[in-house]
Amino acid sequence: MNIQPAERMNHIKPSVIRQFAEAALKQGLISFANGNPSPVTFPVEYMKRFYQEALETGDNKLFTYGAVLGYPPLVEALKKRLAAKYGFDFEQNDLFIVSGGTQAVDLVSKIWLEKGDGVIVEEPSYSSCYNIFHAYEAELLGVGINESGIDTEAVEEMLKTHPEVKLIYTISSFQNPTGYTAVADTRKKLYELACRYDKIILEDDPYTELRFAGESVDPVKSLDTEGRVFYTSSLSKVICPSFRLGYLVADKRFRQYLNVCKQVTDIHSNTLAQYVAWGIMTKTDYEEHLNRAREEYRKRVALVTETLKKNMHPSCRISAPEGGLFMMLFMPDCVDAVEFTWKGIERGVVCVPGSGFLIDGNAPSHSIRMCYSTAPIEDVARGAEIIGKLTWDMIEGKD
Amino acid sequence: MNIQPAERMNHIKPSVIRQFAEAALKQGLISFANGNPSPVTFPVEYMKRFYQEALETGDNKLFTYGAVLGYPPLVEALKKRLAAKYGFDFEQNDLFIVSGGTQAVDLVSKIWLEKGDGVIVEEPSYSSCYNIFHAYEAELLGVGINESGIDTEAVEEMLKTHPEVKLIYTISSFQNPTGYTAVADTRKKLYELACRYDKIILEDDPYTELRFAGESVDPVKSLDTEGRVFYTSSLSKVICPSFRLGYLVADKRFRQYLNVCKQVTDIHSNTLAQYVAWGIMTKTDYEEHLNRAREEYRKRVALVTETLKKNMHPSCRISAPEGGLFMMLFMPDCVDAVEFTWKGIERGVVCVPGSGFLIDGNAPSHSIRMCYSTAPIEDVARGAEIIGKLTWDMIEGKD
Repeated sequence: MNIQPAERMNHIKPSVIRQFAEAALKQGLISFANGNPSPVTFPVEYMKRFYQEALETGDNKLFTYGAVLGYPPLVEALKKRLAAKYGFDFEQNDLFIVSGGTQAVDLVSKIWLEKGDGVIVEEPSYSSCYNIFHAYEAELLGVGINESGIDTEAVEEMLKTHPEVKLIYTISSFQNPTGYTAVADTRKKLYELACRYDKIILEDDPYTELRFAGESVDPVKSLDTEGRVFYTSSLSKVICPSFRLGYLVADKRFRQYLNVCKQVTDIHSNTLAQYVAWGIMTKTDYEEHLNRAREEYRKRVALVTETLKKNMHPSCRISAPEGGLFMMLFMPDCVDAVEFTWKGIERGVVCVPGSGFLIDGNAPSHSIRMCYSTAPIEDVARGAEIIGKLTWDMIEGKD
Repeated sequence: MNIQPAERMNHIKPSVIRQFAEAALKQGLISFANGNPSPVTFPVEYMKRFYQEALETGDNKLFTYGAVLGYPPLVEALKKRLAAKYGFDFEQNDLFIVSGGTQAVDLVSKIWLEKGDGVIVEEPSYSSCYNIFHAYEAELLGVGINESGIDTEAVEEMLKTHPEVKLIYTISSFQNPTGYTAVADTRKKLYELACRYDKIILEDDPYTELRFAGESVDPVKSLDTEGRVFYTSSLSKVICPSFRLGYLVADKRFRQYLNVCKQVTDIHSNTLAQYVAWGIMTKTDYEEHLNRAREEYRKRVALVTETLKKNMHPSCRISAPEGGLFMMLFMPDCVDAVEFTWKGIERGVVCVPGSGFLIDGNAPSHSIRMCYSTAPIEDVARGAEIIGKLTWDMIEGKD
């Protein structure tokens, strides 16, 4: 057979993160690689209750083909929550259930992106989304990110020089991989730039419910009077990933596009999982469930931070996330992150090198992402200590 | 905001079928429109048992991110079944779990299709797949289908004149909408043509397990020594649609492509549903479960066929499916299918006009699809009688 795959296949690459994550699982290492929520946060008892409840109803609507937009009670519950929490305007916007936040990014890309379009991304950022944009043959344009969020000056510079930009992708809270959160002023500037230059913002916000410190900041979508912000979040981090459920908030004038794109992708998302998510959100003390998860991550960040500060080389620096699953360890330029990662694996700990989050995955990097959520708590401090000591050995040339 | 959607959005259209199906639901009509399996076939008791079993295991692998390829025990169970039933070679092929057969068609299209590529489709056929191919900006080339399956002479003619064809899409058994099944000789010819002209076959086979009469015919994939047939089927018709589970069998040399395409689409499919499907397939008398479903459809086809034969105008003809969910009523050219469908709705029965399954959805057609699976059994004969009488009134000009 001598048939060439579509051109897009030249642009998408297997996830580096998954490679390290899978390596970690196989070899029984302490894993800071897997970007998974902590298993102790999975509401298994609630899941038992609501799966049983769903199946007892005998309601065929839960078993046959369902609404493309999502199971209506779950849609309503999420709208109510987002309207109360962030003031989202559901006179103006729809909320769709999607099969995980990844699918939301895919659907928005499917509607808008084609060859020659530019997408501004934070760099480093979640590389699977780079892949999604590449699958639609868009060009990625990286801008920096720091403690205040996306570098809006760099965004403006990019907008001035790259008229082909159509979309700006931002993980506004507890960013993957840095753990950084955009401050209110950054969000406002970003939205103003999108308006001034007539661009779309895709705000990916899967970690926002996991804030364990500091003050909540409203999403960019809260500022959106023009319907140019597509907002997505996920139930993977607050219920469980294997449900494959997320949601997308978009101006109503795009309903027909989203509807048909979802139809040609997977028709709709798993209905029983939607029922269970609705049950957990509306018939339990959901805030208490979230608080347990937040407390778990707060404890873990404190442990890693304290251990690293005690053990790492003074030329290193770590991000100080106020929520989410990720932090980053920044090392001096003499340390190559990939080499560091392999040394770490030799010593029993696996992280993901920062290069895995760059547009050019082979570019040099000097940072590693540490996901503190997955490893058994008793391994977390030990793992952080190993990483801390490794910075000394690498920087002082002892390894 | 003055941003244009991607060019592909000009090519994909909302499903006509869903429009009629949703109309039917809203107005409480007798529905021959919904292409859904019969609710009486949903194994709700088994679902209770295996959801509970899954949740009792407390196995975090069922809750956190799972394997892109699918839940390994389900993958193995399906491989075993397909190897035994059709002789599929899993030394040479992979089996992937996907989020419904629709997603399999999307993934195969994502790998292979781009602007300018041609796709040969049966016409009429499942219009959602037309939409998927259009989303990748492929050109559709329709060939006829009859009692023996796809018209292979028309396929060859098309291949001779359209070198841009890359892929041939076929629903080989109990085709949607006609109910026709390709005979063994058609399958052999189709595969030979694909080899001779170096094309890909995408064989969509979601109804095959629902054979209630006649002899089983091996899929085209069974003939595939060159790895050019992508085979997909679904659990929607044999377990339930709301699980959103299907599978894709493809030559191992495409594993990396499928893996990365699934990652950038929804990462993996709902794991608990995969566990439950595995439980039903391996720990119950699955064949007995399938036999109950087959018997249900056999009974319904007999009822519709008998009633139509008694009541319809002698110039009409119906297909005689040996399995699946669909049959078609073919009327003389003087009857417009869309008009007929609206008259049917006035009389309390909703079908889908044949034009909904043509590449040009506005082209004239003189047939309607009747899905006999969904309506309560006591309504089926009454609905068929109304349809039968309507043919008289339309043809004799009384309505």
